[in-house]
Amino acid sequence: MLRTHTCGELNINNTGQEVILSGWVQRSRDLGGMTFIDLRDRYGITQLAFNMETNSELCLRARKLGREYVIQVRGRVEERSSKNKKIPTGDIEIIVEEIIILNPSKTPPFTIEDNTDGGDELRMKYRYLDLRRNTVKQNMYLRHKLSILVRNYMNDLDFMEIETPYLIGSTPEGARDFVVPSRMNPNEFYALPQSPQTFKQLLMISGYDRYFQIVRCFRDEDLRADRQPEFTQIDCEMSFVEQEDILKTFEGLINHLFDKIKGINFGSFPRMPYADAMKYYGSDKPDTRFDMKFVELNDVAKGNGFSVFDNAELVVGICAKGCAEYTRKQLDELTEFVKRPQVGATGLVYIKYNTDGTLKSSVDKFFSEDKLREIVAKFNAEKGDLILIMAGKEEKTQIALCSLRLEMGERLNLRDPNKYSPLWVVDFPLLEWDEETDRFYAKHHPFTAPKPEDYPNLFTKTKDVRANAYDLVINGVEIGGGSIRIYDKNMQKDMFKVLGFSEEEAQKQFGFLLDAFEYGAPPHGGIAFGFDRLCSIFAGVETIRDFIAFPKNNNGRDTMINSPSKISQAQLDELNIQLIIKD
Amino acid sequence: MLRTHTCGELNINNTGQEVILSGWVQRSRDLGGMTFIDLRDRYGITQLAFNMETNSELCLRARKLGREYVIQVRGRVEERSSKNKKIPTGDIEIIVEEIIILNPSKTPPFTIEDNTDGGDELRMKYRYLDLRRNTVKQNMYLRHKLSILVRNYMNDLDFMEIETPYLIGSTPEGARDFVVPSRMNPNEFYALPQSPQTFKQLLMISGYDRYFQIVRCFRDEDLRADRQPEFTQIDCEMSFVEQEDILKTFEGLINHLFDKIKGINFGSFPRMPYADAMKYYGSDKPDTRFDMKFVELNDVAKGNGFSVFDNAELVVGICAKGCAEYTRKQLDELTEFVKRPQVGATGLVYIKYNTDGTLKSSVDKFFSEDKLREIVAKFNAEKGDLILIMAGKEEKTQIALCSLRLEMGERLNLRDPNKYSPLWVVDFPLLEWDEETDRFYAKHHPFTAPKPEDYPNLFTKTKDVRANAYDLVINGVEIGGGSIRIYDKNMQKDMFKVLGFSEEEAQKQFGFLLDAFEYGAPPHGGIAFGFDRLCSIFAGVETIRDFIAFPKNNNGRDTMINSPSKISQAQLDELNIQLIIKD
Repeated sequence: MLRTHTCGELNINNTGQEVILSGWVQRSRDLGGMTFIDLRDRYGITQLAFNMETNSELCLRARKLGREYVIQVRGRVEERSSKNKKIPTGDIEIIVEEIIILNPSKTPPFTIEDNTDGGDELRMKYRYLDLRRNTVKQNMYLRHKLSILVRNYMNDLDFMEIETPYLIGSTPEGARDFVVPSRMNPNEFYALPQSPQTFKQLLMISGYDRYFQIVRCFRDEDLRADRQPEFTQIDCEMSFVEQEDILKTFEGLINHLFDKIKGINFGSFPRMPYADAMKYYGSDKPDTRFDMKFVELNDVAKGNGFSVFDNAELVVGICAKGCAEYTRKQLDELTEFVKRPQVGATGLVYIKYNTDGTLKSSVDKFFSEDKLREIVAKFNAEKGDLILIMAGKEEKTQIALCSLRLEMGERLNLRDPNKYSPLWVVDFPLLEWDEETDRFYAKHHPFTAPKPEDYPNLFTKTKDVRANAYDLVINGVEIGGGSIRIYDKNMQKDMFKVLGFSEEEAQKQFGFLLDAFEYGAPPHGGIAFGFDRLCSIFAGVETIRDFIAFPKNNNGRDTMINSPSKISQAQLDELNIQLIIKD
Repeated sequence: MLRTHTCGELNINNTGQEVILSGWVQRSRDLGGMTFIDLRDRYGITQLAFNMETNSELCLRARKLGREYVIQVRGRVEERSSKNKKIPTGDIEIIVEEIIILNPSKTPPFTIEDNTDGGDELRMKYRYLDLRRNTVKQNMYLRHKLSILVRNYMNDLDFMEIETPYLIGSTPEGARDFVVPSRMNPNEFYALPQSPQTFKQLLMISGYDRYFQIVRCFRDEDLRADRQPEFTQIDCEMSFVEQEDILKTFEGLINHLFDKIKGINFGSFPRMPYADAMKYYGSDKPDTRFDMKFVELNDVAKGNGFSVFDNAELVVGICAKGCAEYTRKQLDELTEFVKRPQVGATGLVYIKYNTDGTLKSSVDKFFSEDKLREIVAKFNAEKGDLILIMAGKEEKTQIALCSLRLEMGERLNLRDPNKYSPLWVVDFPLLEWDEETDRFYAKHHPFTAPKPEDYPNLFTKTKDVRANAYDLVINGVEIGGGSIRIYDKNMQKDMFKVLGFSEEEAQKQFGFLLDAFEYGAPPHGGIAFGFDRLCSIFAGVETIRDFIAFPKNNNGRDTMINSPSKISQAQLDELNIQLIIKD
């Protein structure tokens, strides 16, 4: 037996017991007469004590143990003279009688501490050491706990977890697939799923009624800091439901998770149509932890001889409470901020509503004081507030002002990571036009149903057709999204048509689904949550990488195992493929 | 709202209530004055009643509803006159007032019944219809239930579920990998994991102490009926354990599952060394639901002038209770059975111990009656028993006799699917010699530790070195297997050496693991269970395909979605690969 207890469980009630512990040497303190070692395992830290007087040989051995050595000790539990109230084992220590070195350790390339001295790259290469750090362990434990909570909640609601295949077929719609050459079917390829979308719909047609799965998904996209080529979804689908049933069910899930982890219950989540989200926040995922809504100014701002406004499709602004005291330098910073390529605006207009009631604006010479007061009134601004205004093409300006709003929220400490503000964004457009490829794309995916009242306009007012689609947004982050699905073969065919699929293409790619619709498909809909992202929200952290045990870097590489890598010529031959080597 | 209740929940207490139900038309019965429809959903069946007298129009509409139509009905719950005690809703029926056809259905290509008329291929092509059948639904539900039970049991024991990557690196050891070309890293490939073996070991090195994961694994092997290119494992690993800790922990898990599903608790599982399993059952996964152990006969059977025995490395037999009455024809059948290529024996010797006490054997002329009685005595045979004997090379003969033993077990109804006999097979050999490639292979995998007492013989008596490796066998089926792992860098290097890896190869393939061993690797070990197989055992069924929602056929194809399939030239170009087209 390698241990009788873990390093997290002994306390004052164990005093006098003979125990065996195993773990890692976290640190050791040599106080002359006594040597103390903090022994660490997943469950905690226990102090080991060695007395130079009573057992000098053992004490000398203990002093030689390096950081991260794996040892086993036998000893007696004793009450400590100076207790550590910060840890559960802080009342006791082990008077060690025997040490066995189970495995020595080289000095780790970075410190195994919450605030490590290791850089990103080094920690990725030695991820197995990085995973030893408490912060990372807590992330992994949170993730585990959330997955158990999700599964039991869904199970209690009669959702069945059903595993769908990872080796499926490639489809041209959506993002780029990872593909897998088939040896048994030469020159053919499997694809890794971007989501189990069609399979979960087939399960509804099969009558499974309530399905969920915590499932890996794959997208071969150029990676950003918060994207991974493989990621995990909580994937859900329900039959005989309308949008309302789905929103209520998953408000329940999210409330349950926040209740169990944070002790928070939000009750019913607010809802906002997509059009309002764009109009008031310039984003389909508004951060509603703070207000600072957009105010449209076309009616008052135009026709005053200021050509920037006069020529703009949209003049729109926000009111930053209490920022009238901003200095020239601070205002210049904001202008620089909106001019950065990531935001892409050409300029920024301000109006200071000074505490003394006077106004000061960067466009004083074009606007009378009355006009300025009219604008300020539109914001319900108070003395001391700062109005920030942008102008240009409608959507571009909204998106740019959204960035500025978030920046001001940041500066005003309105984006508290410990505050949570969930929101359903609903009534998404069914389709969006892509200038580059000169065609419509599905905003959600090609299986999303149009709103029944908008369906007749599918081919005539295509851009205006709304979908029964919804996103769950928390703190400006999209946590999940879903829709009511098409379950009628002809409607699905219309959808493929509007997306520019020929009948043959539609049949070739999705014939099995169109066929399935002919055998009694029920009304159904669903939702999928980004599980990595959901974990990060609970921890108030931005990057999902911290919640993945073995993440890949921005080049899609796992630098620890050095993957991807070359494969042998024999493997290529068996797969009937050859490489195109470019210089 | 599409329904107020499901089709499985209404009973006599709901009488008089106005309800809305949705579901599929399972069957309809037209009795002249009345028409009855069985409405089906996942939860059950509810009878709908239509009265020709009181509402002829609705009744006529109901008669036109075809099998598998999806309908919504509004009506009143009434007590039935002739009750059906077989179903929970059998006391009531719905007097329907309104029907809405949600979706019509073509006639399915096979009947949606427990005993369907659909062949294998047809049901695979229309898997979404096959999944509607009760038997398949029950399998999926059993699988879901088992997964929830496993997860909660493991969670209660402080095991953390940690997701490991699916896009990893290819390794030459073991079965063939599926590979995934990387677009971002041209000419390099990911591989899909055959198991998360190295990652779970790294998690132990990271101090996670107790890990599990229900995880998909992939092997590109030529498929047999009971193999799938993707399959699911319950993958587990523990730190600071010896073999005994692992066996006890997972006996606990298996007992828990059998208790919850079948009301069975086995207590402690019997254990059998690999050598005994081969000696007494000719298999490393003996079916111990019945005895019929092998009896070795070299000492009595040789030296009687029967050259088949005299020249054999092993003469060995079994005693089939009460089979002395077997006819010539039956005995010929057994001889044919062992001569089939799948068994590959050259012949079969029998001794009948007749009920009258006389003996009759196929080798009477070589053996005196005393000699025959001596052989019979070795089996503790009784009057009426039949002794069946085979001879030849040791292992080949054991394996052939194992087939015959199972066949006799089948014939004697000793392989009861409702009886369960779990067994740990322990002390596996560490390595096995492969004649074809003229080298040793790891019997389990290259990370399995030799028994400490055998380790000194690794390079001298390689074949005799035993591992701390164990398999869980239930009813002759391998349900899981695992081992205590190597955690010492030098031992791991020795292992790679004996497997014929050069130092460079070992470093290239597994350098990250060898490196990790240098930073304080704890003693650890684990086990993995075949989850598809485990599900099938609970249902007393042989094939795992019935427990996978969307399985592939023996060519690795999903005939429903027609995958794998061709991909576009643009996709190939982006991946820097081209196909080798063979005629």
